[in-house]
Amino acid sequence: LDAVKAVLLGVVLGLCACASPPVIEVPKSRPLAELLESSPASDWRRIDPADTLYMDLPSGRVVIELAPAFAPRHATNIRTLVRQRYFDGLAIVRAQDNYVAQWGDPDDKRDLGAALKTLPAEFTRRAAELEFVALPDRDTYAEAGFSRGFPAARAGERAWLVHCYGMVGAGRANEPESGNGAELYAIIGHAPRLLDRNVTLVGRVVRGIELLSTLPRGTGALGFYEKPEQRTPIRQVRFATELPPAERLELEALRTDSVTFRHVVEGRRFRRDDWYHEPAGHVDVCNVPLPVRSVKR
Amino acid sequence: LDAVKAVLLGVVLGLCACASPPVIEVPKSRPLAELLESSPASDWRRIDPADTLYMDLPSGRVVIELAPAFAPRHATNIRTLVRQRYFDGLAIVRAQDNYVAQWGDPDDKRDLGAALKTLPAEFTRRAAELEFVALPDRDTYAEAGFSRGFPAARAGERAWLVHCYGMVGAGRANEPESGNGAELYAIIGHAPRLLDRNVTLVGRVVRGIELLSTLPRGTGALGFYEKPEQRTPIRQVRFATELPPAERLELEALRTDSVTFRHVVEGRRFRRDDWYHEPAGHVDVCNVPLPVRSVKR
Repeated sequence: LDAVKAVLLGVVLGLCACASPPVIEVPKSRPLAELLESSPASDWRRIDPADTLYMDLPSGRVVIELAPAFAPRHATNIRTLVRQRYFDGLAIVRAQDNYVAQWGDPDDKRDLGAALKTLPAEFTRRAAELEFVALPDRDTYAEAGFSRGFPAARAGERAWLVHCYGMVGAGRANEPESGNGAELYAIIGHAPRLLDRNVTLVGRVVRGIELLSTLPRGTGALGFYEKPEQRTPIRQVRFATELPPAERLELEALRTDSVTFRHVVEGRRFRRDDWYHEPAGHVDVCNVPLPVRSVKR
Repeated sequence: LDAVKAVLLGVVLGLCACASPPVIEVPKSRPLAELLESSPASDWRRIDPADTLYMDLPSGRVVIELAPAFAPRHATNIRTLVRQRYFDGLAIVRAQDNYVAQWGDPDDKRDLGAALKTLPAEFTRRAAELEFVALPDRDTYAEAGFSRGFPAARAGERAWLVHCYGMVGAGRANEPESGNGAELYAIIGHAPRLLDRNVTLVGRVVRGIELLSTLPRGTGALGFYEKPEQRTPIRQVRFATELPPAERLELEALRTDSVTFRHVVEGRRFRRDDWYHEPAGHVDVCNVPLPVRSVKR
């Protein structure tokens, strides 16, 4: 990896961060697959089964990693709801193109049981509490980067998760504290960054986002389905820890504070291969892949 | 509209462009629908039927506006191909999640007839040739804004179209001049800005993008379909001018150099209503809606 490091360092030093197209000859970037293949095991972290949700749809399984470091109260409430089997038999109620797929109780009647009906908003966190790997490139909205495996941003003393493709949030009514995790959404289009700091993000889809992104769009206002039969039923939602180990999908995520991840970022910023001729020289937070792989048993 | 202008001006002056969350009380933004409803007719332009493509799929019609100002040679070649009925009976060959849907000749056998097999790349244009309405916010990659109704960017003396959701480009092989418009793609995920300046964008989908974004994802490499029967057939592709006027869908687009559009942009930057509490204070080029409406006959 030292050779790669040297090359990347040369690239970083050789190119200005200005907006003009780079004119300096840039070496070809290493393919992502090759970079990951040669990465040390210590650059990966096991996705904690206690933070892993399986949402089973007729079309397959959506796997979500919760982010309790960013939304501890919401994570706890979701835990309570899942243990009560709250989501089983509910439905995907909304699919708005280039925006979100959303699920919950279409009739708004199911009892929340021991879960809280309202929660204090967890739109932002104290930045000092969280590690942050900043991207070198300017972000339109704040300072962007990664924290504990998730795309994040910060400004002043606050940090927050960012609405990239596949991120999962807790729908709410008009009052900031009206979200409780019983109604969730996943981003299925261009990162709607205007939502940042306005709603609590609780995690991200690490497998199966295509089961949500390909859903027929709802034809009602905001992409809600107009007829009950258009909704996709949710068979069940379980934590990985609720399934016998043999039935779990063990996953690892590349650590966003690892050297390999830094190479992934640089490979995107200066992407150049047989097809790419003009490296962007920059990358926005939602264009950086967050690699996840199955653990070989 | 003068009152709105005054309010927006106050908003612009009252907030810094820095990354810190704004703390000044911002008036509620006007809903987009209301803004468009009250806009003068002169702020709209008819989408030229001579630049309008109808791609008919079994699920419905995708309407594409070509951008000959940015890709004149590609537009001309596509015109030749469509008049020869080149696309009729071909197929959507690829759908890669959070990336592109792509169509063309799966067997690479159909004769291009009078169309050119290779074209000089049209990745960028001379900036001086094109009007440009710059966004006030910083962009990760360049200076971003709008030109002739399309999302665009510029740096130094060059300008180019930007890979926002719904944009349509001409696939190519490794050589920059290998694209010819016979293989096209549409963006169906987060704006892959790394593609900017690496491939020729030829227009954008103005109606029916959901017919492409909901396609089942291909399971082969790069999202290509592995079996012929998985592909979606293209019934026909026609220019609007090839159809009798009664069968056309007459569309108008909000002019991106209009006062109303400036209000649309400011409404997004400082979005604040009963639901949004924390205006972003910024907007990236691919988060600005480009309104299109049907012309009342």
